Amino acid sequence: MTQHSSKPTITAFETSPDRGRGLARDMRVRWALEEVGQPYDVRLVSFAAMKQPEHLSRNPFGQIPTYEEGELVLFESGSIILHIAERHPGLLPAAADTRARAITWMFAAVSTIEPIIIERQVAILNEGNEAWTKQRLPMIEHRIRARLGQLSQHLGDAEWLDGAFSAGDLMMVTVLRRMPGSGLVEEHANLAAYVARGEARPAYQRAFAAQLAVFEASSAS
Amino acid sequence: MTQHSSKPTITAFETSPDRGRGLARDMRVRWALEEVGQPYDVRLVSFAAMKQPEHLSRNPFGQIPTYEEGELVLFESGSIILHIAERHPGLLPAAADTRARAITWMFAAVSTIEPIIIERQVAILNEGNEAWTKQRLPMIEHRIRARLGQLSQHLGDAEWLDGAFSAGDLMMVTVLRRMPGSGLVEEHANLAAYVARGEARPAYQRAFAAQLAVFEASSAS
Repeated sequence: MTQHSSKPTITAFETSPDRGRGLARDMRVRWALEEVGQPYDVRLVSFAAMKQPEHLSRNPFGQIPTYEEGELVLFESGSIILHIAERHPGLLPAAADTRARAITWMFAAVSTIEPIIIERQVAILNEGNEAWTKQRLPMIEHRIRARLGQLSQHLGDAEWLDGAFSAGDLMMVTVLRRMPGSGLVEEHANLAAYVARGEARPAYQRAFAAQLAVFEASSAS
Repeated sequence: MTQHSSKPTITAFETSPDRGRGLARDMRVRWALEEVGQPYDVRLVSFAAMKQPEHLSRNPFGQIPTYEEGELVLFESGSIILHIAERHPGLLPAAADTRARAITWMFAAVSTIEPIIIERQVAILNEGNEAWTKQRLPMIEHRIRARLGQLSQHLGDAEWLDGAFSAGDLMMVTVLRRMPGSGLVEEHANLAAYVARGEARPAYQRAFAAQLAVFEASSAS
């Protein structure tokens, strides 16, 4: 494993739109860094600064989180977490086949599950005042339910998606958390317990506290 | 690099809904296998079979493509292509930092660009008869334009997204191809040329011919 000597720096929202509930994508990178015991620095960026050349040079799409480690600059939470997992033990199995399957779950989280959850969020936040949203929401939730039903079926009585806890679970738990109050995850007792198991991990709790502290500092000032 | 001795088997639609235009996700896996010169078998699955236990044991979400290599079974095109890229030269740079950046573009393709393109597709295919779709489509396309503008800005005059052609470009080109006839990619001459460069690669053309042959056989029978 290549060990870079420098402490990495990630970016996060200066003013968290979720009011410290840990729903933004820096949460998953913080959690991964806590799981492997890697200290990190955080650079807070405002919504205005995210669209400026300095931040766009880190992420052309103007989003958080980004990850800087010496000369290396990465974006996309999935890519950042895979990078961390490749450099530290604790997030991916050592055996080639189980490792490949854990990475499959990372992609499933961001490519098969998260997009419909984001579509629901966009419908509520951006199109909440449109007349059609009341009719469209049940259609979106029908598609979310289909996916969660399949995920619940796969998980069954297992603790994690494929053997031991991995970066695939870390990604999936953070994705499933993005519908607070919807009750959709709670329709499957095993999925709700799965998310709770993730949230109970000490590394998760340290990461959650760190992002909450940012919100509390910003709202106190 | 671990070399498995067995020839991999992928799954693809028995009856391609895109009529052989190479828009389904098996296309990107075929392309990756062609880039590295790895022969493969294809198991065609019907829409009904995709929801049956046999296929669900390969992919709990009942989608194609899946990938079988000896005992290993994977799904998610991003994960499959990363697996292929790790076992064969030609799809990822050898240097750790440029390799990590290429993987970042794989995630950007499936997590930042593809979801809004799929949302547009869903609006047209599933909600095309709804009164609101005429008003919603420009809103979705506004979001697509914003992302494509940023991607075009990043690409500039470069041939590929980050140095030499990589699995990141392979994923991005196949994602951008999923809006044929929309004219959205063509609004940026550099993006249209980028997609055309991908399509001009001999490996792409072999993969395209292979998936087209499946459609032609199914429509002739």
